[in-house]
Amino acid sequence: MSTTPLTRSSVAPAGLERFYENVRLTSRNLGAPLSDADATVQSMPDASPAKWHLAHTTWFFEAMVLTPYLRGYRVFDEKFNFLFNSYYETIGERQPRPKRGMMTRPALEAIYDYRDHVDTAIGRLLRSGPDEAVSKLIELGCHHEQQHQELLLTDILHLFAQNPLRPAYKDPSPIAVETGGSLPLQYREFQGGIVEIGHDGAGFAFDSEGPRHRLVVEPFRLADRLVTNAEWIEFITAGGYRDPLLWLSEGWATVLANGWTKPLYWEERDGEYWTMTLRGAQPIDPQSPVAHVSYYEADAFATWCGRRLPTEAEWELAAGGVQQSGNFADSGRLRPKPVSPSAGGLRQMFGDVWEWTRSPFSPYPRFRATEGAVGEYNGKFMSGQYVLRGGSCVTPADHIRATYRNFFPPQTRWQFSGLRLAEDA
Amino acid sequence: MSTTPLTRSSVAPAGLERFYENVRLTSRNLGAPLSDADATVQSMPDASPAKWHLAHTTWFFEAMVLTPYLRGYRVFDEKFNFLFNSYYETIGERQPRPKRGMMTRPALEAIYDYRDHVDTAIGRLLRSGPDEAVSKLIELGCHHEQQHQELLLTDILHLFAQNPLRPAYKDPSPIAVETGGSLPLQYREFQGGIVEIGHDGAGFAFDSEGPRHRLVVEPFRLADRLVTNAEWIEFITAGGYRDPLLWLSEGWATVLANGWTKPLYWEERDGEYWTMTLRGAQPIDPQSPVAHVSYYEADAFATWCGRRLPTEAEWELAAGGVQQSGNFADSGRLRPKPVSPSAGGLRQMFGDVWEWTRSPFSPYPRFRATEGAVGEYNGKFMSGQYVLRGGSCVTPADHIRATYRNFFPPQTRWQFSGLRLAEDA
Amino acid sequence: MSTTPLTRSSVAPAGLERFYENVRLTSRNLGAPLSDADATVQSMPDASPAKWHLAHTTWFFEAMVLTPYLRGYRVFDEKFNFLFNSYYETIGERQPRPKRGMMTRPALEAIYDYRDHVDTAIGRLLRSGPDEAVSKLIELGCHHEQQHQELLLTDILHLFAQNPLRPAYKDPSPIAVETGGSLPLQYREFQGGIVEIGHDGAGFAFDSEGPRHRLVVEPFRLADRLVTNAEWIEFITAGGYRDPLLWLSEGWATVLANGWTKPLYWEERDGEYWTMTLRGAQPIDPQSPVAHVSYYEADAFATWCGRRLPTEAEWELAAGGVQQSGNFADSGRLRPKPVSPSAGGLRQMFGDVWEWTRSPFSPYPRFRATEGAVGEYNGKFMSGQYVLRGGSCVTPADHIRATYRNFFPPQTRWQFSGLRLAEDA
Amino acid sequence: MSTTPLTRSSVAPAGLERFYENVRLTSRNLGAPLSDADATVQSMPDASPAKWHLAHTTWFFEAMVLTPYLRGYRVFDEKFNFLFNSYYETIGERQPRPKRGMMTRPALEAIYDYRDHVDTAIGRLLRSGPDEAVSKLIELGCHHEQQHQELLLTDILHLFAQNPLRPAYKDPSPIAVETGGSLPLQYREFQGGIVEIGHDGAGFAFDSEGPRHRLVVEPFRLADRLVTNAEWIEFITAGGYRDPLLWLSEGWATVLANGWTKPLYWEERDGEYWTMTLRGAQPIDPQSPVAHVSYYEADAFATWCGRRLPTEAEWELAAGGVQQSGNFADSGRLRPKPVSPSAGGLRQMFGDVWEWTRSPFSPYPRFRATEGAVGEYNGKFMSGQYVLRGGSCVTPADHIRATYRNFFPPQTRWQFSGLRLAEDA
Repeated sequence: MSTTPLTRSSVAPAGLERFYENVRLTSRNLGAPLSDADATVQSMPDASPAKWHLAHTTWFFEAMVLTPYLRGYRVFDEKFNFLFNSYYETIGERQPRPKRGMMTRPALEAIYDYRDHVDTAIGRLLRSGPDEAVSKLIELGCHHEQQHQELLLTDILHLFAQNPLRPAYKDPSPIAVETGGSLPLQYREFQGGIVEIGHDGAGFAFDSEGPRHRLVVEPFRLADRLVTNAEWIEFITAGGYRDPLLWLSEGWATVLANGWTKPLYWEERDGEYWTMTLRGAQPIDPQSPVAHVSYYEADAFATWCGRRLPTEAEWELAAGGVQQSGNFADSGRLRPKPVSPSAGGLRQMFGDVWEWTRSPFSPYPRFRATEGAVGEYNGKFMSGQYVLRGGSCVTPADHIRATYRNFFPPQTRWQFSGLRLAEDA
Repeated sequence: MSTTPLTRSSVAPAGLERFYENVRLTSRNLGAPLSDADATVQSMPDASPAKWHLAHTTWFFEAMVLTPYLRGYRVFDEKFNFLFNSYYETIGERQPRPKRGMMTRPALEAIYDYRDHVDTAIGRLLRSGPDEAVSKLIELGCHHEQQHQELLLTDILHLFAQNPLRPAYKDPSPIAVETGGSLPLQYREFQGGIVEIGHDGAGFAFDSEGPRHRLVVEPFRLADRLVTNAEWIEFITAGGYRDPLLWLSEGWATVLANGWTKPLYWEERDGEYWTMTLRGAQPIDPQSPVAHVSYYEADAFATWCGRRLPTEAEWELAAGGVQQSGNFADSGRLRPKPVSPSAGGLRQMFGDVWEWTRSPFSPYPRFRATEGAVGEYNGKFMSGQYVLRGGSCVTPADHIRATYRNFFPPQTRWQFSGLRLAEDA
Repeated sequence: MSTTPLTRSSVAPAGLERFYENVRLTSRNLGAPLSDADATVQSMPDASPAKWHLAHTTWFFEAMVLTPYLRGYRVFDEKFNFLFNSYYETIGERQPRPKRGMMTRPALEAIYDYRDHVDTAIGRLLRSGPDEAVSKLIELGCHHEQQHQELLLTDILHLFAQNPLRPAYKDPSPIAVETGGSLPLQYREFQGGIVEIGHDGAGFAFDSEGPRHRLVVEPFRLADRLVTNAEWIEFITAGGYRDPLLWLSEGWATVLANGWTKPLYWEERDGEYWTMTLRGAQPIDPQSPVAHVSYYEADAFATWCGRRLPTEAEWELAAGGVQQSGNFADSGRLRPKPVSPSAGGLRQMFGDVWEWTRSPFSPYPRFRATEGAVGEYNGKFMSGQYVLRGGSCVTPADHIRATYRNFFPPQTRWQFSGLRLAEDA
Repeated sequence: MSTTPLTRSSVAPAGLERFYENVRLTSRNLGAPLSDADATVQSMPDASPAKWHLAHTTWFFEAMVLTPYLRGYRVFDEKFNFLFNSYYETIGERQPRPKRGMMTRPALEAIYDYRDHVDTAIGRLLRSGPDEAVSKLIELGCHHEQQHQELLLTDILHLFAQNPLRPAYKDPSPIAVETGGSLPLQYREFQGGIVEIGHDGAGFAFDSEGPRHRLVVEPFRLADRLVTNAEWIEFITAGGYRDPLLWLSEGWATVLANGWTKPLYWEERDGEYWTMTLRGAQPIDPQSPVAHVSYYEADAFATWCGRRLPTEAEWELAAGGVQQSGNFADSGRLRPKPVSPSAGGLRQMFGDVWEWTRSPFSPYPRFRATEGAVGEYNGKFMSGQYVLRGGSCVTPADHIRATYRNFFPPQTRWQFSGLRLAEDA
């Protein structure tokens, strides 16, 4: 997942100020349990420090909105443009990604000051009656920040998992995954045909979600729930991690190179599996969806079952009638996740774990990236990645939608990524 | 490209013996210009020694056909099963791929003896009236060997390019690429709609070419010829290799990591570009299609032009009416390539350079890998690769067809890979 | 430099308590300018976080002294044995060195509590009249902590140098290097002969400093001051970093692999050289000794001059008559360095920069490592390292002595390491 | 071991022609069992192809002797200067070392033609009455070629060990190691004192063997034979490869990184140890000296015994009275090794396996490298290497002498390297 541009606006000017404030407050609340040190360290090149997330999302508003559009805006600190640019080549040089964790200064408190400075200015801009283009940029900045809220949590989890103390981010945790696995798994059948997927332009979406377009989908069946930890343990026990015939060639090479024998964060303690969570190390819940598995593992598991992963079109088609939900909705008041309604008989479609699809992240027909710096760029990542759908328990609830295309390289495991089985009908 | 299984037979039993003999003789002829040393060295982990190609294709017939199906067959050398298995996990352990170049023994002459031994046995089997399953396996082995004929040539070219002497494989070279670039480039328009692609079962095809299936294609335009060296030099001169905004994110990282500034094998001599060919180092021909570029480079070039690469479906649709041709047809008598007919106004569709498409190598709907060892497996490579279409000047002529899906990772450059531009209509 | 055991005691029981208190207070004062984040991050595998230094030195007293020798001692936290063991295989498993920077918890404040807890217990033990063995262990722990005081400063400097803000550790800095370079360099001659070097057992020394032993030294001459920055700039300007004939084979490979063109921390700003210091980035002082050069660079520089580096025996012989001095002496009251007396006409022998010698770190004749866990072990590092002599501006003043053998691998640059020229007489 | 220059001549002009012819013929005979492919492949970056050894030693005569000193000499092939220069920066650019194995052309036969061409010219030069400087260069070239004769054999052994067929270089092998281990090991005592070591200038020696100089040696004892395979098996069985306390820190890291559990080339077959030899895979002979162990292993073994490795001075002192011998003497007639006389009660001092000493390869006092290209340069390798003494079963007999300082990095195993124990007296 990456910082990415919008194509279409959804929030009426009236609601935008409230949306902005809620998003910004949520980030602040997510930072609250963290010490300066927690917020500074980078646990691997793919992850970023929490401080960096908090600053970079703020820099986005400063560089993309305030500097070009707010007359008389005074930049908070000239050096922050170098420190907190992520990868916008258009905007200039930046701190190399693997060295984001070297920035013990500025301190976390200074980043909060930076946020206040920018919030004040954006508030002024919003109340001045910005034109539509500026409003859209601010809205985009909010969605961009929501993406980083999820990353902040996945990155903190990864960091704390490297610590032998296995500290808790927060206990009780804000996050609950629906445990629907005790019900028997059933397959729901879909007719396919000439169908449409992709965002239709009503409301906000990232550029890569559109254009809406027709395609042919063959009849298929989709499991009515996610694969569970209990089922994953069966896979392990059956030797799934030792049988090359189950794996993609690259997947098997990855298994051997990294010595994978179980999902990321799992460890054995006295013959029982534990995993790392945002409230510290915990015993595995057998009925919860398996999480922190790579595309390669998801694909091998499906092969072992004689099934396959769904395509993103199949998933989106099936998700069409399902009511979305999620885990933390507004103002940072993190709240228990409601059980998702069972439209079409499908459960756990939204807000539990991201579901790997077998679809590489490719442009939809007639896709065009947004112009300008904000167009750098979902398109830029359209190689070597697979699409995930549905949102996870750490995705902000109002950031989830049926057309959303998340994407990660197939070896990625530190996201809340799991799977749902499919088969040809 | 990999050794891959068939789904459907094409050669009538009567013609199979002749097909087998031609294919085997062609390989032998390809080996003729090589010394034992030439045929032994491995120039990089992705490439294999010529000796290994000559032995592995022979091992395929021995392990997949003779051992299970020819009563009383005596294996040539028990140890060859370890030495010349490529990646068939079903068949057992094997020499690690990056160490294929350590096998100075057996000598090339011993490999030729091995080939004779197997040819005699296959001849006996063919004359004994094998059942259809066995015939299909032999036919598959022939197509498999044709794949390795191309690899033998690309790998020898890579090896000789590492040698400061830049030796010629053969001069005059067997290979000619059609130089059609002096004609102005024009775009041909296609209507799209609900169309069908994929192999229809008539004649031989690899499993991944099917099943034939419907899909929606939007209207598009396709260039009537390949991108030329002259056009590529313009791209270089315009700073194409230095502008990150033109590149996929992974592509740009690859450019930086490897210091790419021009296609593989190009070198500057006194301000002029030269390239390595099968007849040694040669000055660049401006009108010839550019070759030895990666997917990343092809994509960046298209972006620089304001165009894009075609999808594989677009390519196959356009190629439907074009007569195929190629460079070396039978019995190893390498012959000049005829100018390809201009059906639909498209030129250079077959047998010049492999054309990168923007389609990741993914399973077609309802794809099923072949059962058994030979089903290891196009499917196994369906991650991290892009499809190339059309065949190159080193692809055997009768190995080329419109449905053929070649595939390589996007950073690959040592194949004869180039590009054709496309755009939305 | 590593945490290392003693062989011989020097501090009378009466003075030990004061020595302990001073050393511990100094460490505390060194930590004072650091935030929790500053003290947590590890900037490279060779460096350790300040927090780790502060905790590990404390752990040493806990694991080596209190647990075995103080009846009823209650360990502060059971998990710290895993977290803060450096490399004592005898003591058990430990956090892998390259992951020391993952420990955002325990926080810096908790480490200070740990220090208080241990200090209280050691105080109790000291007042209880410990036997000689225990006193020696406590004394060893103090010297061990002094080693880590230097490392804490070199590691913080390295960390801050990775930060684009180039923050100051402390300004004005506690550290002053004598700038004696404006005087013309002269060579002092020494007769050599059958001489003795090594520690004689009076006062504290690490095991590797002894036994004192005879050896033959040929007549030699030693420069009366260190090589300066101005002289190093001449070396750069003359193409020293581009001429392979000046370098050891391994050194030249290192230059090429790392793109070295100047000492570590040097950068060019508008045609002028700046360097990173404990008070932030500063212009180079031409008359100061060059620092942060590797053995390879020191050796190449000497070759360029037609000179050589001294052996450690030559250095020790010459240093015999020179009064020692240093930069920060006691109780953390960091004070300006006094100009070192010029015994034998030699200046800058102690407390400026560590001086590379051409002597590999090898055991002296009849060397025996100390028994037990504390004997792990200077000896353990006796391969692949060169001896440095004299102490640097960040070495505690009372930690410097003429027999001290510091050692680092020849590519090391982040220590305050420089050089003095020598030649055969 | 490297190609290195001389300081002092030993062969009277009369004998030089015969010496030259013998050396050159020996190389030719060493190449005889090799195919073109055998002679071309490079099995690792540290090793070189046999063809390269045969050509490089010839190039040495061409570049250092014929081109500057034989009027009218016509270079065999202009390109060979690039292909076969090893590392002489003075002489110009060269094929990168790790790519020496890419040169399938020129073929082995062409290299033999090259040798003939150069031999004819050197013969002419020798008969023309060259001056002393030229004679010395030719003599140096002969010793240089003898070094490469040993390397050719160690490199071929390494190559053949990578081949699953474990082919024999020659059977019966030319090489015999004295198996003296059945006799009980005894220690011989030496008094030490102020002694002299180093070459005294009578006869040929490499520059690093001198100057002869005084040093102090403490009394010591030396084992009267080498450590045997049987003793090494005891070490393995006792867990020697699993106990970090026995190892140097770098050695233990190397053990872990490479998974070492036994000497190079050893493999277990049905519970018995086999090893790779020049006559193919063979069962271990318990009474033979252990070979193919690194410095780290030798040091750990000695620590496990409560002993240590000797210094090179101790070894040279002890070897003073022992008659030298060796395995293949002249004209390529490889002959069984005579049992070495037992002067001073020491056996197996020469021509069995190179003996690791604990002495880093450092310059002797007042060492000066030879001037000019041939002075590149033992000195250049004086970091990161340890001295080995005594010569091995693949060292030419007349290339062995008591002052000879061979050197390799401490992790090196593919040479015939073993050890002899020592202790303080």
